[in-house]
Amino acid sequence: MHSVFIEELDAQTYAEHLARPGATIIIPAGATEQHGPHMPLGVDAMLSRTIAGAVAEKTGALVAPALCYGYKSQPRSGGGNHRAGTVSLGGCSLSQMVEDVVGSFIAQGFDNVVVLNGHFENYQFIYEGLDNAVARTRNPGAAARAMLLSYWDFVDEETLSKVFPDGFLGWDIEHGGILETSLMLLLHPALVKMDRVVDHPPAKLTPYDIFPEDPSRTPDSGCLSSAKGATAERGRLLFETVTSQVADALKNELLLGGMPLEAN
Amino acid sequence: MHSVFIEELDAQTYAEHLARPGATIIIPAGATEQHGPHMPLGVDAMLSRTIAGAVAEKTGALVAPALCYGYKSQPRSGGGNHRAGTVSLGGCSLSQMVEDVVGSFIAQGFDNVVVLNGHFENYQFIYEGLDNAVARTRNPGAAARAMLLSYWDFVDEETLSKVFPDGFLGWDIEHGGILETSLMLLLHPALVKMDRVVDHPPAKLTPYDIFPEDPSRTPDSGCLSSAKGATAERGRLLFETVTSQVADALKNELLLGGMPLEAN
Amino acid sequence: MHSVFIEELDAQTYAEHLARPGATIIIPAGATEQHGPHMPLGVDAMLSRTIAGAVAEKTGALVAPALCYGYKSQPRSGGGNHRAGTVSLGGCSLSQMVEDVVGSFIAQGFDNVVVLNGHFENYQFIYEGLDNAVARTRNPGAAARAMLLSYWDFVDEETLSKVFPDGFLGWDIEHGGILETSLMLLLHPALVKMDRVVDHPPAKLTPYDIFPEDPSRTPDSGCLSSAKGATAERGRLLFETVTSQVADALKNELLLGGMPLEAN
Amino acid sequence: MHSVFIEELDAQTYAEHLARPGATIIIPAGATEQHGPHMPLGVDAMLSRTIAGAVAEKTGALVAPALCYGYKSQPRSGGGNHRAGTVSLGGCSLSQMVEDVVGSFIAQGFDNVVVLNGHFENYQFIYEGLDNAVARTRNPGAAARAMLLSYWDFVDEETLSKVFPDGFLGWDIEHGGILETSLMLLLHPALVKMDRVVDHPPAKLTPYDIFPEDPSRTPDSGCLSSAKGATAERGRLLFETVTSQVADALKNELLLGGMPLEAN
Amino acid sequence: MHSVFIEELDAQTYAEHLARPGATIIIPAGATEQHGPHMPLGVDAMLSRTIAGAVAEKTGALVAPALCYGYKSQPRSGGGNHRAGTVSLGGCSLSQMVEDVVGSFIAQGFDNVVVLNGHFENYQFIYEGLDNAVARTRNPGAAARAMLLSYWDFVDEETLSKVFPDGFLGWDIEHGGILETSLMLLLHPALVKMDRVVDHPPAKLTPYDIFPEDPSRTPDSGCLSSAKGATAERGRLLFETVTSQVADALKNELLLGGMPLEAN
Amino acid sequence: MHSVFIEELDAQTYAEHLARPGATIIIPAGATEQHGPHMPLGVDAMLSRTIAGAVAEKTGALVAPALCYGYKSQPRSGGGNHRAGTVSLGGCSLSQMVEDVVGSFIAQGFDNVVVLNGHFENYQFIYEGLDNAVARTRNPGAAARAMLLSYWDFVDEETLSKVFPDGFLGWDIEHGGILETSLMLLLHPALVKMDRVVDHPPAKLTPYDIFPEDPSRTPDSGCLSSAKGATAERGRLLFETVTSQVADALKNELLLGGMPLEAN
Repeated sequence: MHSVFIEELDAQTYAEHLARPGATIIIPAGATEQHGPHMPLGVDAMLSRTIAGAVAEKTGALVAPALCYGYKSQPRSGGGNHRAGTVSLGGCSLSQMVEDVVGSFIAQGFDNVVVLNGHFENYQFIYEGLDNAVARTRNPGAAARAMLLSYWDFVDEETLSKVFPDGFLGWDIEHGGILETSLMLLLHPALVKMDRVVDHPPAKLTPYDIFPEDPSRTPDSGCLSSAKGATAERGRLLFETVTSQVADALKNELLLGGMPLEAN
Repeated sequence: MHSVFIEELDAQTYAEHLARPGATIIIPAGATEQHGPHMPLGVDAMLSRTIAGAVAEKTGALVAPALCYGYKSQPRSGGGNHRAGTVSLGGCSLSQMVEDVVGSFIAQGFDNVVVLNGHFENYQFIYEGLDNAVARTRNPGAAARAMLLSYWDFVDEETLSKVFPDGFLGWDIEHGGILETSLMLLLHPALVKMDRVVDHPPAKLTPYDIFPEDPSRTPDSGCLSSAKGATAERGRLLFETVTSQVADALKNELLLGGMPLEAN
Repeated sequence: MHSVFIEELDAQTYAEHLARPGATIIIPAGATEQHGPHMPLGVDAMLSRTIAGAVAEKTGALVAPALCYGYKSQPRSGGGNHRAGTVSLGGCSLSQMVEDVVGSFIAQGFDNVVVLNGHFENYQFIYEGLDNAVARTRNPGAAARAMLLSYWDFVDEETLSKVFPDGFLGWDIEHGGILETSLMLLLHPALVKMDRVVDHPPAKLTPYDIFPEDPSRTPDSGCLSSAKGATAERGRLLFETVTSQVADALKNELLLGGMPLEAN
Repeated sequence: MHSVFIEELDAQTYAEHLARPGATIIIPAGATEQHGPHMPLGVDAMLSRTIAGAVAEKTGALVAPALCYGYKSQPRSGGGNHRAGTVSLGGCSLSQMVEDVVGSFIAQGFDNVVVLNGHFENYQFIYEGLDNAVARTRNPGAAARAMLLSYWDFVDEETLSKVFPDGFLGWDIEHGGILETSLMLLLHPALVKMDRVVDHPPAKLTPYDIFPEDPSRTPDSGCLSSAKGATAERGRLLFETVTSQVADALKNELLLGGMPLEAN
Repeated sequence: MHSVFIEELDAQTYAEHLARPGATIIIPAGATEQHGPHMPLGVDAMLSRTIAGAVAEKTGALVAPALCYGYKSQPRSGGGNHRAGTVSLGGCSLSQMVEDVVGSFIAQGFDNVVVLNGHFENYQFIYEGLDNAVARTRNPGAAARAMLLSYWDFVDEETLSKVFPDGFLGWDIEHGGILETSLMLLLHPALVKMDRVVDHPPAKLTPYDIFPEDPSRTPDSGCLSSAKGATAERGRLLFETVTSQVADALKNELLLGGMPLEAN
Repeated sequence: MHSVFIEELDAQTYAEHLARPGATIIIPAGATEQHGPHMPLGVDAMLSRTIAGAVAEKTGALVAPALCYGYKSQPRSGGGNHRAGTVSLGGCSLSQMVEDVVGSFIAQGFDNVVVLNGHFENYQFIYEGLDNAVARTRNPGAAARAMLLSYWDFVDEETLSKVFPDGFLGWDIEHGGILETSLMLLLHPALVKMDRVVDHPPAKLTPYDIFPEDPSRTPDSGCLSSAKGATAERGRLLFETVTSQVADALKNELLLGGMPLEAN
């Protein structure tokens, strides 16, 4: 069985996939962003790519190279764009890149294009790029259908209560927190330094943004909450919930082409 | 006492304001968007403008003409961009317009520029425009400071429990619901037709978006929840909480110029 | 009878209008610009909106929210972009905003889109946006038709001679002059301070522009001619001529849908 | 004595000019546009370039290569963009090109940059490009100054009355008319076919624009008035007035570097 | 027989050409760029225009006004963008200008659009503009076909060995060298000063670029190799090879309309 | 010793690097593009990333996440943009993305930014983005220096003669040929299927491009030459030459910060 990641596929194998009815590509969208002293800069791209891979295996889809640079990190969800290690795109740049890449996949003949987002601040700019790409290519009667999601929106209540037994405070402060750290402990444990995890209370977020950013509003750690409770076990709970829920959503919404190529 | 709305001010009075230390301008950001059969298309612009006016009176700020067209309405927060009455800007258009307008106010000498948002989908694109305007004008040592907020983010728990005694389900489904309808009943009652309020359960929102939009996912009413419980009284609770909280935030974060001009 | 301003219409009433053959929307285009010490910053938006409303009543059209920010004020027609109170958009921003808004109305199904301009400097950039919007949406065979006009171009010779008995010197120097002040005295008298009207000779305009602007070339008042002769009576002459002439032009050029909805 | 046209200058001679105080470059702006059956498509570029050359000789300036493609021809001033022979740029393209070229000349060290326009529809889009270029380069304290003009705006009343003894009807209908034809007869007589000059009354222009353009509104000839009265003699009157007036304006407004290089 | 240059054609003659099957337009693309002390700034535009004219005569095509400003001169092929006399466009500006102009010719009805490039650095940005213009206009079934070439790529081995008897070192160092100087001696001899030709060895080019440019890496002359060996005779060899090879390529690739109009 | 790839570094380690004098970041630029039936779509990104990693180890630099989508594949260097597996960005999108990413690294404090390109068609658009980023950030006196290179331009004659004993025909036809296949056999052997290598003569490339692309001009294999002669041994020769030559160029041109952090 071959890889689901198209960067590892030869063009012939790729073309065979593309020729199948319901051909589906998943584009992971990440960022290059500080995630505290205990996790690497590539967390968002790594997680979205790995989750996309698992969803692809469940649905017969392929996975495109991850978007490794994302929209500007914001103080209220990512610690801010001023921190060392955070490297960002402007809004129009990101929207245009998404429009080009998605338009390119649709032009090749994919029936379904999914963007699986792993960086909070990306969502609206990807939405714009996707909307434009689909509008631009809709005319010729092409039946291409696109989908946009952030993986954490598929964590259900039951999993939440297990992963956050002391109460869940919202996805926004999960930057560098239990969610991401647990998933990294499961999927890329060598890149996590649990001995460096900070132990501070959740950041108090203001209900507004200030420009230019005020660095003093972000905890020194760069994390918006502590990852003390992170474990690989909790990572597994999250991973399994997310990948199965996302896979189900794809099956419900898109005309997928049946089982993976190898299973035919 | 003169108006706080600059479209009604002559240039001389305006210039006197501008010359005061801590001169502050608030830009309301709305949309032209269907809000169900019982409310007019201009709800977002009307509410953000009226709230901005009240905040201006409490802080000595002025209010700029409202941005009357907003980012594309989305099914998960506004019913979708396909509905009759919804007229939208693309993402880059909106960001660029904000960058121009904010840059223009900063160039004139305002110390503080606040964008007070009243349309959910606008936030990230205004963020981008504000960030660029402030970055562009920061060089010359100008100490301009900007702030971005959506007014509903200032409703506190106590008010929420009074306005939504049966439980609050999230701001996203409040499109055309109790929040906006109560405020409109207070502030623009002649434009609300309570006999047309629909009575359907809150829309079940998917945790993802689909392109092209699927019109069948939005309730026929165009509202994401029922406004049955809306009253002017609840509108007053919301209005007073929001305007005083926002005014406090401005006072805390910005170097305001003391009391309104008339009070000097 | 309901309002012709769509920000005050509910989506259902709006949709009924839209469904009529010959559905027509008028978009007023103004600016936020100093108009001397005697008039408010919003003159261009107020006048274009009020005139659009009167034209709509004569033609069965609807009126969209006014574009409240316009292209950079120029010394030869608006006193210049450097003056306090003048807040402007760049050329591409304005064209793109117009393209988005007009494209949005066409996509909804309007047969006719009219932009009624009230700020001299806007014209060419709106032209570009309109041209692009119509070109972009022409393909599918949609019969949408658009029209662009500045309201003062409909003042006929007879009216001119009555309003300017001492001779008419051109629309360019009418910034803050008799035309606009008379109309404001008729339509928004509370916002005009006739005791502040300057009494200086018409500005001597050069047949060229200089960059960066030279503030000394604009009269201190910010007006390019004196509004001494302005009266509400002259405002009425202008208003009646303009609104009936513009309405006639719409009737001649566009396939309007007959009488207003209420008259059916 | 060497050429004033920089495309014909070697870099060394050019650099000597540039090093002089008050170094001035004139950029002619034309179009590729039908000018009736009797004149070539390049009229606007040819006339602006030749006039710029004469002004340069009077002022010690140099002339840059002409902008040969202009903004979309409009029915009310150029016959419309739909006619064979008319090849146009969009508004943002033109503004951006001007910003780049002007910015490039300023960066090299020119003290003064003049754009001499010969195509009616260009003016506002060049204005935007010039304004942006000067704003962008103003920061470092560079004292660059720019000027924008259309050559016909320098024809004085006396010349008008001689060239149009039967009355002057406005520059807008002069597309392919007496002004341009007379100048071409003087400057490029081999490219004018007077036997093909049409003899129809001036086009009746509407005070508005329609989109998409209605080809029936433009006379079949593509000219907005007849060039019957055009003569080389009238061309000489126009040419001498325009070149001396424009040269005077440059001398008054700009710090020119004294006499031409050869005269030093 | 009339000119092949459309700026010299009246609209009627132009329209007759356009109506022929296989109507073809060639757009020369040059630059304004220093070419050493012995040649003028307009070399690239002059050569591409003259070569285009000769090709047009061999193929029945027409020639559009040359693009006189090109992409930023680079140290490895044009001496760099910092040198006096070099005036450039940004990449997006150039691509957009090409897209507009090419799109305009296709919309008018040309069957074939050829861009004949004479400035090394232009190629990729013109490619982008052409690709977008053709993609944009392909939908309606229009059979427009476009072609892009740089003229020196048509010099064959035999000619190379005659023109560079001591060995050919690559087109990149030919900036201001034997190729261009020989062609100028043939086609525009009055603009070449052979007594100023520098005699230095070919520039040693690095296999990389540095930003900001390091002026010391370009020879003082601005030329990347010596033009000592340039002669009009060699210019003729080059000109005849290039024009006949390019004409053959057009005939092979495009459906040309047979012989020139005059020959019909 | 820690990784040189910043996606694997935590923010604290990254910040320590950044604080060193001469801090240098290398951005690999690849593409998603078919490379024949025997190699995967990610060849360009993989090779540029791996080579960047080796250069980083020799110079103390860090490596940024690779740009995984590149400019449109062209028939004359990459087989064309129409082939299955090739997913591309437009020119302005790529330039803008590079400008944002490079500008972000400079703003953080890197002294040197290197883009190491592995996709032929990218070069000019990356050049534009780099040039703009450096120009934009140059003002504040920041001494940031940038460098752009394509790795194959560092293969010396001696290596060429060993790798291509039958003669080297140019980098353009090496798409999917011996160069890339040998490097992949060395660096990512599991992703190469040598039994699928095609055996056809080098593609005959025209000296021009045609739009829309003519698929019949590219060999069915998608490769422009045969990779029959590819071996891991030749890959090693190429890899060692390229990495040591590029490292030397960095040391010569940039002020590097001495040895890697661990060695200090």
